[in-house]
Amino acid sequence: MTRFSAAVAGVTGYTGMELCRILAGHPNIDLTLATSRTEAGKQLQDVYPFLRGLPLGSLAITAPSAETIKDSCDLAFLAVPHGAAMDLAAALYDLGLKTVDLSADFRLHDKKTYDAWYALDHRHPELLAQAVYGLPELHGERIKSARLVANPGCYPTSAILGLAPALASGLVHTGDIVIDAKSGASGAGRKPAQATLFCEVSDTFRAYNLTKHRHTPEIEQEISLVAGEALTVSFNTHLLPINRGILSTIYTRLTRTISPERVHELYENFYKDSPFVRVLPPGCLPETRHVRATMFCDIGLCLDARTNRLLILSAIDNLCRGASGQAVACANLMLGLPLTTGLNFAPLMP
Amino acid sequence: MTRFSAAVAGVTGYTGMELCRILAGHPNIDLTLATSRTEAGKQLQDVYPFLRGLPLGSLAITAPSAETIKDSCDLAFLAVPHGAAMDLAAALYDLGLKTVDLSADFRLHDKKTYDAWYALDHRHPELLAQAVYGLPELHGERIKSARLVANPGCYPTSAILGLAPALASGLVHTGDIVIDAKSGASGAGRKPAQATLFCEVSDTFRAYNLTKHRHTPEIEQEISLVAGEALTVSFNTHLLPINRGILSTIYTRLTRTISPERVHELYENFYKDSPFVRVLPPGCLPETRHVRATMFCDIGLCLDARTNRLLILSAIDNLCRGASGQAVACANLMLGLPLTTGLNFAPLMP
Amino acid sequence: MTRFSAAVAGVTGYTGMELCRILAGHPNIDLTLATSRTEAGKQLQDVYPFLRGLPLGSLAITAPSAETIKDSCDLAFLAVPHGAAMDLAAALYDLGLKTVDLSADFRLHDKKTYDAWYALDHRHPELLAQAVYGLPELHGERIKSARLVANPGCYPTSAILGLAPALASGLVHTGDIVIDAKSGASGAGRKPAQATLFCEVSDTFRAYNLTKHRHTPEIEQEISLVAGEALTVSFNTHLLPINRGILSTIYTRLTRTISPERVHELYENFYKDSPFVRVLPPGCLPETRHVRATMFCDIGLCLDARTNRLLILSAIDNLCRGASGQAVACANLMLGLPLTTGLNFAPLMP
Amino acid sequence: MTRFSAAVAGVTGYTGMELCRILAGHPNIDLTLATSRTEAGKQLQDVYPFLRGLPLGSLAITAPSAETIKDSCDLAFLAVPHGAAMDLAAALYDLGLKTVDLSADFRLHDKKTYDAWYALDHRHPELLAQAVYGLPELHGERIKSARLVANPGCYPTSAILGLAPALASGLVHTGDIVIDAKSGASGAGRKPAQATLFCEVSDTFRAYNLTKHRHTPEIEQEISLVAGEALTVSFNTHLLPINRGILSTIYTRLTRTISPERVHELYENFYKDSPFVRVLPPGCLPETRHVRATMFCDIGLCLDARTNRLLILSAIDNLCRGASGQAVACANLMLGLPLTTGLNFAPLMP
Repeated sequence: MTRFSAAVAGVTGYTGMELCRILAGHPNIDLTLATSRTEAGKQLQDVYPFLRGLPLGSLAITAPSAETIKDSCDLAFLAVPHGAAMDLAAALYDLGLKTVDLSADFRLHDKKTYDAWYALDHRHPELLAQAVYGLPELHGERIKSARLVANPGCYPTSAILGLAPALASGLVHTGDIVIDAKSGASGAGRKPAQATLFCEVSDTFRAYNLTKHRHTPEIEQEISLVAGEALTVSFNTHLLPINRGILSTIYTRLTRTISPERVHELYENFYKDSPFVRVLPPGCLPETRHVRATMFCDIGLCLDARTNRLLILSAIDNLCRGASGQAVACANLMLGLPLTTGLNFAPLMP
Repeated sequence: MTRFSAAVAGVTGYTGMELCRILAGHPNIDLTLATSRTEAGKQLQDVYPFLRGLPLGSLAITAPSAETIKDSCDLAFLAVPHGAAMDLAAALYDLGLKTVDLSADFRLHDKKTYDAWYALDHRHPELLAQAVYGLPELHGERIKSARLVANPGCYPTSAILGLAPALASGLVHTGDIVIDAKSGASGAGRKPAQATLFCEVSDTFRAYNLTKHRHTPEIEQEISLVAGEALTVSFNTHLLPINRGILSTIYTRLTRTISPERVHELYENFYKDSPFVRVLPPGCLPETRHVRATMFCDIGLCLDARTNRLLILSAIDNLCRGASGQAVACANLMLGLPLTTGLNFAPLMP
Repeated sequence: MTRFSAAVAGVTGYTGMELCRILAGHPNIDLTLATSRTEAGKQLQDVYPFLRGLPLGSLAITAPSAETIKDSCDLAFLAVPHGAAMDLAAALYDLGLKTVDLSADFRLHDKKTYDAWYALDHRHPELLAQAVYGLPELHGERIKSARLVANPGCYPTSAILGLAPALASGLVHTGDIVIDAKSGASGAGRKPAQATLFCEVSDTFRAYNLTKHRHTPEIEQEISLVAGEALTVSFNTHLLPINRGILSTIYTRLTRTISPERVHELYENFYKDSPFVRVLPPGCLPETRHVRATMFCDIGLCLDARTNRLLILSAIDNLCRGASGQAVACANLMLGLPLTTGLNFAPLMP
Repeated sequence: MTRFSAAVAGVTGYTGMELCRILAGHPNIDLTLATSRTEAGKQLQDVYPFLRGLPLGSLAITAPSAETIKDSCDLAFLAVPHGAAMDLAAALYDLGLKTVDLSADFRLHDKKTYDAWYALDHRHPELLAQAVYGLPELHGERIKSARLVANPGCYPTSAILGLAPALASGLVHTGDIVIDAKSGASGAGRKPAQATLFCEVSDTFRAYNLTKHRHTPEIEQEISLVAGEALTVSFNTHLLPINRGILSTIYTRLTRTISPERVHELYENFYKDSPFVRVLPPGCLPETRHVRATMFCDIGLCLDARTNRLLILSAIDNLCRGASGQAVACANLMLGLPLTTGLNFAPLMP
């Protein structure tokens, strides 16, 4: 069986943690190099006690260096923050190493849009056109031959997969789309902050970043490509007192009369070759726990005859499907492996 | 100090529990009669151990009877299920006792609408016109002289208070309103059911009852009155893994250009005499915990220039403001007491 | 690769659910027959929407019958309640089918003890001596040749594994053992009950069944075997507002002076051939999430010099290690497969 | 009605927050001065949005100064960290201002013990003998005339109240006491830290600080006074995924045979003049939610005939009874007010 070596740069954080969980059981990809500036010198199990007893546990954490990564690995996962990822990605690109960047640095094709939403001056704009947006359902073929993959954001994964079939078929109006998205707290990262302390998140619920979430242009870029016209959406985010999971409730207006069965069929057909997307039958709605720890994107469809709307509900696990699992799926394709290799997780219930 | 005696019919359940908590500290209303068919013969503290040591704890639970209630009380709170409440309310109405019905039985003015949404044949349609919808901010004067008050539903309280100022001033289009509402699990009641077991709600999130929630016609009735035209809204509900709290994210389209400060002023002005409504300054968003255990409805306002929308966020405690506390506020008005008597709760944080 | 067919009797419930999750990915055991009286006629995915899209999802649920099970399967998992399991287990035993009973019906060797603690008259006492207590670390060899395995209870799994090395080596006094155990809510089962509603468990904590939990005699039976004398323990249980996980804090008194390193070594040595037990280094304490969704039993050891005690902390996932996963481990051994087949789960974090 | 002015030094943090909640409704004590080095210049409602709309909300936060506090207030609550509190307390003591220190700085009578457990050199040891340990049930009379009150720790409040009656009556052995304590996350404070992020606490459970928790000497000091001999206890702490609440499960050995009713009577008698202690009847166990947001300490008693033990369960709200509410109770006594003034909270359920 072919075996590949992979590096994870920036292993401390929830996406690094999830990459460890997934790669611990991957049949073809070995995590052989884990980097962290702050934890270099320790073993993975010192930072992640839950890895004790697993082969990965004794892997030494080292400090990041593009050359070291290139020399010993077939592919790199970048789990460092945006802004920091772009230089490392560029260095690895120049060295010719296949790279999946989990940050936002190469998701947007347009430098101006990146600079405006992220309040940075992108230092490697020439790579924006080279990077492939790593959503397998839309860009699977291009991911296979990509040298640099920009792993999609968690919210965009759920929103784009939910909207694509309706927009591709002209089923809904392009000018009246509202995405009401709710995410678990792991999406906020592992850096200590008062706003994400247990007592500030538990037993409460709030919206945040309304009208200015950085995932907005990413969603608009991708669904505009699907729709064939430039779209603007109202994308709004909320913080759930759960660990993992995103549920997006998407409000659209229908362009024509259609039955629930026909909408279901249209979605089923769009995703007939996409093993990770589960289009739920009419009357069935997704729940975040139904996709917990998996690659599934569950899509529920609900016609509202009273208001002539199609409600699209899309649920993913933000850490697995929305980040690290999707990165591994892209890596599978880039390495010539079947998409689902090592990713056939059954949901953890309850 | 004037003292009144009150009965709670149907004391076992979360709204009955919350009435106990509130009335335990009310300076003018004494809970002197508590009824429950299943628990008659016990003391309140047998059913609610948390009441032990409080004067209410030793109150005997009895079986319901309209005459007994009328004979010993100045006012009755009905916390029995809809369908069951209507007969008791009618009996008390005939006996001339002031009554606040926490069920849905008298909220809708139109029998056909009630029958259709609740799949029942309303047995006392003549009282639908007599009952006053118990939202103090909109119907305070009528509540004062009402004999029968229909206590608003939890979701409607948050949605109507959020929308009223914008609709009253023609600030938003009436044909494009989406209410994305999220509620804590106490809204589902205390009756054992698999769907609301801890392991079915914790660490997960889901939508439910999409396009057919029974609070829809109640919201439409009240905001149509405010807007002066018949409105249809898209009202959609989700279950939060929290005990108490509703957050409604309401999407509207602006009819005119306006500044955040002006929107804030318009809302402040609308609620200038409403001590329970807190209009948050621009940039500030509500959280369910900020209203926990209180009568507050916190309203946040957010203009989205990119899509020309006004986002209205409205947070309440579904058990206090959205049920039992609101019932006591109505009772205060009906008994000639100041609205806020016994209801000046500070939020419990965290 | 050898393949075996397995039945799950009583598939609706958390242990049935977890058996589905585990067997969905097992390389050698196929779940081919799932029974439930109440859900017969449906497919598994109708009852468990999270299985949609997995091969197991379309498995038809049928009504239970020992003969049918025997005819089509190599092994049966009984996930029906105690009291009901004993007759089915006996029927399967007579038919010669290998059976793992997840209920308590065959865990106790002594009929009188069973009858007293479970308030039942055991109808198949002759099998109590035939059944093997399915704790692989203590009875691995006997499990391999067993026809009927009594799968251990969740609490006993954590308590026995925590105490065994200390008792086997005479390190602690046998007359002063206190087990303070805490469990997630899935241990209470999936049957609707007011006491396990979300709002009755969330954001709170309580003890229950003090001094009379039915797992007491099971713990005493097994640790008495290890210690070589009849032991009585103080075993006390609490309900945690989490889905999965048990943490037992076990208080013992030392019989001799010993260093933390020596205690650690003693435990390491005891479990040197037990891949599922992780003895944590001195200073490191277990957490339930570190074993979430896995077969691990994490054991932390803490010497209290001030009071001359050894504190033993033992964490497991009550559904996986404490029930369904352990049942599959026993099945592996009974079918001649390596113990860990299909059970090498990495913990789900967070 | 007599009115007093109070200061809160160190208003940002969970105990400061809780003091605001409690004093917002206190009939005789006005919070007129709130200090915080980091937030000086803001209004309370800027830091605590939940106070908006309440009179306290517009209180300006200032920088701390003993003289300013003395000049304008009748009493000061110190909610600053231990180590920092001692100097401020000493300054206020010298100025003659009544002070309740919520930190640990004056709880221990012995400087050496303080220095050893807190790894500090106490700078005002002369005040250790002046400070009164602020547990009203044990030291009510001395609190009334105290100038400096050391407000008890949260865990000690629950442990001492649970043990006192049994020790005072010689009912249990003094040499075999184990306290297995579990606390909600607010006990860890509001300072950002990775270990108390939502995703590190939610859906998990762990022990911490075993054998070395700083509340140990405080418990031992107070129960030794009650027992009349120097006691050593095994005190061990765990972190619960809840906001508020402590449950201590206390294991003791009986010195004599006694009935449950007699134990209950003994406890009832001990606390007959203590309105905040609720001794639960035999068979009834405390829950943290039953005391949520209140001053109650609920005590459950359970005799284990098999092991000759008395199990004592003691539940409090760590922020209210275990910190800020207890501080206000002490302030009430120091100001000549009835103990329960402004503290008759009914539990928030659910």
